[in-house]
This record gives sequence, C-alpha cells and structure tokens, in this order.
Amino acid sequence: MNFAIQLASEAKGQTSPNPLVGAVCVNNHRIVGMGAHLEAGKPHAEVHALAMAGENARGSDLYVTLEPCSHYGKTPPCALKIIDSGVARVFIATLDPNPLVSGRGVKLLEEAGIEVITGLLKQEAAQMNQAFFHSITHQMPYVTLKSAVTLDGRMATEAGSSKWITSEEAREDVHRLRHIHDAILVGVNTVLHDQPFLTTRLPHGGKNPIRVILDRHLRTPADTPVTADPAAGTLIYCQEDAPDVQYRKHVEVIRLPDSVSFLQEVLRDLYTRGIMTLLVEGGPAVHSSFIEQGLVQELYLYQAPKLIGNGPSVFTSNRRADMADSLKLEITDVDQLGSDIRIRAIFKEAD
Amino acid sequence: MNFAIQLASEAKGQTSPNPLVGAVCVNNHRIVGMGAHLEAGKPHAEVHALAMAGENARGSDLYVTLEPCSHYGKTPPCALKIIDSGVARVFIATLDPNPLVSGRGVKLLEEAGIEVITGLLKQEAAQMNQAFFHSITHQMPYVTLKSAVTLDGRMATEAGSSKWITSEEAREDVHRLRHIHDAILVGVNTVLHDQPFLTTRLPHGGKNPIRVILDRHLRTPADTPVTADPAAGTLIYCQEDAPDVQYRKHVEVIRLPDSVSFLQEVLRDLYTRGIMTLLVEGGPAVHSSFIEQGLVQELYLYQAPKLIGNGPSVFTSNRRADMADSLKLEITDVDQLGSDIRIRAIFKEAD
Repeated sequence: MNFAIQLASEAKGQTSPNPLVGAVCVNNHRIVGMGAHLEAGKPHAEVHALAMAGENARGSDLYVTLEPCSHYGKTPPCALKIIDSGVARVFIATLDPNPLVSGRGVKLLEEAGIEVITGLLKQEAAQMNQAFFHSITHQMPYVTLKSAVTLDGRMATEAGSSKWITSEEAREDVHRLRHIHDAILVGVNTVLHDQPFLTTRLPHGGKNPIRVILDRHLRTPADTPVTADPAAGTLIYCQEDAPDVQYRKHVEVIRLPDSVSFLQEVLRDLYTRGIMTLLVEGGPAVHSSFIEQGLVQELYLYQAPKLIGNGPSVFTSNRRADMADSLKLEITDVDQLGSDIRIRAIFKEAD
Repeated sequence: MNFAIQLASEAKGQTSPNPLVGAVCVNNHRIVGMGAHLEAGKPHAEVHALAMAGENARGSDLYVTLEPCSHYGKTPPCALKIIDSGVARVFIATLDPNPLVSGRGVKLLEEAGIEVITGLLKQEAAQMNQAFFHSITHQMPYVTLKSAVTLDGRMATEAGSSKWITSEEAREDVHRLRHIHDAILVGVNTVLHDQPFLTTRLPHGGKNPIRVILDRHLRTPADTPVTADPAAGTLIYCQEDAPDVQYRKHVEVIRLPDSVSFLQEVLRDLYTRGIMTLLVEGGPAVHSSFIEQGLVQELYLYQAPKLIGNGPSVFTSNRRADMADSLKLEITDVDQLGSDIRIRAIFKEAD
C-alpha cells in the first residue's frame, strides 16, 4: 500500500479535479501490475494496474489508495473491472469522501464475493488527497495562503516596497506552488500595484493556474497583464453594482451580491467550476479576510533573514486582545531554501 | 584537531570570561593525552593534556585550539610548559585575538625549536569562541537577542498579553540560553510589567546570569523579584540625574551620562566587569534600540504556530522605506522545539 501511495503521489498537480490514486496488484508475493491515475478523463489507477497484470490478476491481491468507483463517469466503474479481472482480495486505504457514493464500491466488490479490507494506511492516503477530501466535503476549494515576510514579520515596508523580500530559490518555489494549484487568487490592489502575470514560470515549464481577482468595484484595467495576456483564464469577482468593463475573451466577470459572505460565495462558485485547490497570494487585506473568516486550510510562510522595522504583517485583526485567543496552527514542515526558511503550517480549527 | 574542538565545546558556558580551549597530545599515532579548559582560574587545556601524557609527551604532536598563552596570569604560561614537556610539533587552530599578545606564544615555541603549524580548522575553532573573540576585539559583550513571536511576527497583543506565546519546550530552551550567558538584560518596563526573576530554571539546575536592568530614571522598585531576590547580582543602569533609591546589597546602581551612546556605554561598562556574553530578553523598545544601533550579534527567534492579528513586532524603525535597505542576517540553524520553531541567525553587518 505504501508503494501504491508513492505511485499516486508522483502525479501530484496533474489529476485535478480528480484525486491522486495509486494501485498495486500482487500475485503470489510478486508485483504483477502497478498504476496511478495520471489525468482527469484518463484511466483510473486500478485500470492501469489490472491491464499490466493481465491474466496474473486472477486470484491476486489488489492494493488501491482510494475506494474504487461504482458509477459510470468519464470511465466505466472500476469496481466492475476489478470483479471481471478475477482479483481475490482488495485492500483499500480510504473510502470515497462523497457521502452519496461512499461505501458503494466496497459493497459491489463484496457482493461479487471479493474479500475487502479497508483502512490500511488510511491516514497517509487521506493526507495525500487532503485538498480533494476537503473540497468534496465543504463544496469549496482547499485554500493555501502563501506569504513572504521578513524575520520581523513584515510583508512590505510601510511605503509599499516588497521587492524582493525572499531569495530566488524561494521565489522559484512559489512557482512550484502555482504549478500544483488549480487557481491563484489576489486582490485588485495587488493587480494595480504589482501588475503581476500570475503564471507559472519554472525552468522546465509548468501548468498555469486559473487567475482569480477579488475586485468588488471592478477596478481591474483591461490592459494589465492578467487581462491582456491570455496565457491562463482570468475570473474577476465583483459586486452586482460594479461598472461595466470590456475585457478580452479569456477574462470572465462574475457578479455576486454584496454581502458579508462575499468571500464564501466566491469560493463556492470556484468549486462549481471544478477548482479544488486555491493558492492565495494576496496582500495584507486579502490575507486577513481569508484568515479571519476561517477560509484558509494551509499556510506557506517564506521568511527572509532581514529586519525592516515597519510595514504590514501577514494578518491584521483587532479581535484578539488575549494571547490565549490566538488562531492555532500546526507546523508540519520547515525547510531552508537558499538563505530563507519555508514554513508549512495547517490551520487547526479549519477543517 | 577536530577532537580538540569537541573537547573544548563540552565546557560551553562554564569557562567565562575565558575562552573554550581543547588540546590533544598524539605520540606515534596514539592519543596519549587530552584536555579542555574547564573553568577560569583552573588549568588550561594544554596543561591537562600534557599531565595525562606524562613521559609520552616527549617527541609528540600537540593539537590545541587556541594559541598557548605566553604570560603569567592566574596560571603560568602554557608555552613554557609545552617547551619543558619536550613536545616536537604544535598545531594551533586560532591565534590569540588580543593584539597585545597575539603571536607571542607561537614565537616562544619556535624559539625553543618546536615546529608550529597554525590555522588548522581555524574557522571552526574561531566559531566556537565567537563571543570571546568579539568581546576582546570590541571591548563590549557579544550580544544575543532572544524573542518569542507568533507566526504573524507579534511579541504580544496590543493590550500587552504575551503569556504564553511559545510552548514549554521553547521556554525551557530559553533557560538553557540563560545558563550559557554571563548576563541577561531587560528594560525597566519588562521589570514593572512582568516582574520576572531572570534566573535560570532548568530541571538539573543551572548557572544564573547577572541581571542587568536598563532604567534611565531608576523606576525599578526595591521589592520586585530582581531587587528582592539575591539569587543573582543585579546591575541597574540609570542616568546621572536619576533619583536615589535604596536597594538590597546584591543590587548595584550605575549612573551614566545621558547621551546618544548610553547603550554603548552600558555595554562597555559590562565588559569591564568581565561580562563577555549578554542575553537581551527585552520588549520591543529595548530590542529596537539594540538592533537600530547595531549592537546585536545574534538573534534567537522562537516562533509559535499562532496568529494573533495585532501587537508589536520584534523590531520597530521608520528609517527604512525600501526593502533593499533592510538589515541582513544569516540563518545558521532552524530547529523544531515542541510545537514551535527556533531560528538562530547572526547579523551580517555587525562584527
């Protein structure tokens, strides 16, 4: 199962909106088939593994990281494929998170007389598909907030200077983050101030995320990189009463009612568009809104060994006067990137 | 020499105001003697190593991490001892940093016909005695600033709440820092607000640093822990025009002229009292003064996985509007302590 998880993980960033899935087929203590789900619409992991196993699938043990599907989607149900192939036992790490179909794959297999064992390395497999599980459960994308700060916690100086806080290595790592996310979000102030492209620029290429701009009053110009450059689709979220602006074809304007749950509505709408993972690369205001409303699951904090003495922090809120009331996270990884540090932390309350 | 450095390092924190020194005596490819300087006033490393070697010192190679002394101090000069013992070759990692005596030990040895090789693992040996070398050169203590902050860089909330930001593991680590420093410094505001003892509280005991209070107008009460509890000496630095206050015997008040170099004068005075290493555990104002005046060599930043949204950062200054003008540090170590992170960084410009 460990190997199946490893196989699945290799496809990180290329299967969305589908989860990462790996499968290993073992007959008589020998691996006779292996596979991973590589791209939405393409064969599932089990199909690859069984095809490789061929006749050796008969009487074998199949290890699969996610419950085999039981429905006709873009591909026929894997459960039937497994039954047809004559597999004797199926080990499943995690059940399908979708409450409508969870357990159905297991049931199909068992009804066909196959022994099913669930829960093997469950945590590791769930961890790998954290974003997929979260988005299915909450009907919103899994949100990762990225920020670069000095050692005294500033995202920029008071005067707005922020280029560059971190080293080249750290900035390249951010492009790696973009590559593995379905969409990237900034506020209109970042668009106006930095005129970013928000594309993925890695030495060996990369996948561009869909660009999302929070812009209640539609102040995004028609000739700024995100609207002028069609390298990736751009979604601009504004209020219903925002002015009319003509943009190029790759730009879509979405009007939502002005309400306290504006941000949540944006996330819900993104989910309906198949966006499972969202990278927020905003300024202090956007970050603070996401954090304060509990809409962030994960934080990537890049810290540069610098002190600047003034400027905004990653989070601003006056609601907490007592240290005991702070928002709690859990640090999962700390890495040195060039001269900088990258901290990955997950929010404890959220999720 | 590597082993000699290792021997020396074991005595970290117990040799001040003397440096860490290790010595290894090798005869015919066998270690025949080893030693480290363990406490000021007690024998130097070479003396221990030669005593252990006895007759085997004759014709041997002696590895010593710091140039053997050439003067009569609390102990007779080691250079003569080495000559008497019949050592054939001496390997020295670093010369004495004191310009008045540097190179004299080498000269004595060479005049006696001993072959001397200097510079072996020089950097590693200098690193180990960084504080000693710095303080001798600058006639001021080596200053380490310690701060505990949230992930959004706050030392406390705006309302002053700071208990506790970090975990028990991190707080115990701070006591380890106190143990290895000659003195600990805070501002009077910390004394008034937190009423700290500023003593070392480790599970297996520890050495209390001398307590130093920056208190220009002598507002430190006579009955607060640092003045009431004689567990360690307390030095209070104030201006000449500060009021008269009667304290207990373990408290000494030092009056200095009111000037822009007040802080530097405090450090110079501490040096004359044999304080080579100073740990600053102040609040935002004290930290900012030290940093802004370039009087800090090292930073220990404890970061807790929390976001609070308001409150002071570790450094406040309005002098730098451009990110390019930030103060540069170098991160040397990153460690996880319980749920927290400890970052050790050294200031690049200072020193």
